[in-house]
Amino acid sequence: MSLLIIGSIAYDDIKTPAGEVKNSLGGSAIYAALAASKFCESRIVGVVGDDFDKSVIDILNENKIDTEGIEYATGKTFRWVGEYNDLNSAETHDTQLNVFADFEPKIPEAYLDSKYLFLGNIHPALQLQVLEKFGNVEIVACDTMNFWIDTTPELLDDVVRKVNILFINEEEVKSLTHKQNIFDAGECVLSMGPKLVIIKRGEYGAVAMSKDFMFFVPVYPVRHVVDPTGAGDSFAGGFMGTVLQAGEITEDVIKAAMINGTISASFNIENFSFKQLLEASSESIEKRARQLRKFMGL
Amino acid sequence: MSLLIIGSIAYDDIKTPAGEVKNSLGGSAIYAALAASKFCESRIVGVVGDDFDKSVIDILNENKIDTEGIEYATGKTFRWVGEYNDLNSAETHDTQLNVFADFEPKIPEAYLDSKYLFLGNIHPALQLQVLEKFGNVEIVACDTMNFWIDTTPELLDDVVRKVNILFINEEEVKSLTHKQNIFDAGECVLSMGPKLVIIKRGEYGAVAMSKDFMFFVPVYPVRHVVDPTGAGDSFAGGFMGTVLQAGEITEDVIKAAMINGTISASFNIENFSFKQLLEASSESIEKRARQLRKFMGL
Repeated sequence: MSLLIIGSIAYDDIKTPAGEVKNSLGGSAIYAALAASKFCESRIVGVVGDDFDKSVIDILNENKIDTEGIEYATGKTFRWVGEYNDLNSAETHDTQLNVFADFEPKIPEAYLDSKYLFLGNIHPALQLQVLEKFGNVEIVACDTMNFWIDTTPELLDDVVRKVNILFINEEEVKSLTHKQNIFDAGECVLSMGPKLVIIKRGEYGAVAMSKDFMFFVPVYPVRHVVDPTGAGDSFAGGFMGTVLQAGEITEDVIKAAMINGTISASFNIENFSFKQLLEASSESIEKRARQLRKFMGL
Repeated sequence: MSLLIIGSIAYDDIKTPAGEVKNSLGGSAIYAALAASKFCESRIVGVVGDDFDKSVIDILNENKIDTEGIEYATGKTFRWVGEYNDLNSAETHDTQLNVFADFEPKIPEAYLDSKYLFLGNIHPALQLQVLEKFGNVEIVACDTMNFWIDTTPELLDDVVRKVNILFINEEEVKSLTHKQNIFDAGECVLSMGPKLVIIKRGEYGAVAMSKDFMFFVPVYPVRHVVDPTGAGDSFAGGFMGTVLQAGEITEDVIKAAMINGTISASFNIENFSFKQLLEASSESIEKRARQLRKFMGL
């Protein structure tokens, strides 16, 4: 079975205290799929422009990522230009939507049997469009960002009501729910519909909340963070890959998924683009997961 | 056996989003001793002025806290006037050192057999004076703050080199070690002398590091934080009380101490001064510790 991932594909120009890159391939779909690839097969739906370097397709395919759902549009690929001053928050210098502006997810026929969906951070209207095509899935997870919380709150509420799992960062969940205490905010999300909310807390780890369950995972102690871009997406990819691999979503599976999501993100932030994530072997992931469990007393 | 605590005794005027109090009894010695009292006997050394309300002595004594080491000086008790706008960082409006300005810890004869010491956040020169009197202790822990890191760095380095355990918050450990990554900062502290460094991360929990051990504890999910004053001291008190109760400092004891420290702080922040901490029964502490272990997957 494959994880279906709908999200952005982007070229990023990124500056961090560790260095600078231009035309660095990224986007939520790419990061999530590469993280998931350590645990399961996946399929991506997204759009790129004429400037897209097709040589990456081979790399994706070699990593059990089906790329039939990548649409080639006329124009330029989505581009983000940003800078991290303190590795915790990004300053956006420029956002060029390009072909992403008119993106409407086209789901290939062969993908319609997907039972596990991850809706990366895209316009809530598009997330809803995708959801309409999948009435009978087992797990739908989505991610979002402040921009949609601020500009399309009603559409986003609609999405949240229809998904099983919401990935959201700490500031965003406060903003979405108008609650200042994150545990209150998490409960508020659960009352909207999702069975599980994963609140991402950057360098402080993450917390999973369901009606009668809470689980904290600390961050894996990375010594040299190079680029935080894609950390949240690789967390979600590692998480969803683990859930799909398990084929069920018990408390133990959630714990393993939180740990694997954390480890996926830990590799991703050690280099620009997805270089380190791509190179991470199953053994190195398992090794870090064992270490993290030890740091948690497990 | 008793935990010897040297620290401040203060009257605080505090404003938080949850309310406001004046003449609220606090100070590092008081918070640490009351937190430790759930696990062991303690002895405090500190100074108060003529305005000190002696009725609190009975409360302390009833909680297995020996108060022979409280010095009554002429003048007013140390006073801190502060405000928390977002519950994470305090803004100091006024600090009146009063009798604390000339404080020199006088250790009663009966306290000289102490084997477990907690040096609360006071001038490093005073911490060193105390250390000179205790050549043969089992565990010495200390806490400090940015003010001493900035104003008396050499004296403070001297203290750090001589203690077994350093309690320090995240910003402070970065400032003390000139390292931006907290794991690097923790290792730097360990290279100075301490066997264990406990980095406190406020609402994100704490991490304990020794040469070959790391352990993360998340925060206990408190829904209504009233006043964060004394959270770090009650954490340290609960931690040290647990260590003394165990009589040794193994990895398992450190884990239990981290959890009990967290729970002590969780009660403390639920009300002004030490009201909630005082009322917390052993059963309610044990109940929260069990819950927190569950949230950690233990």
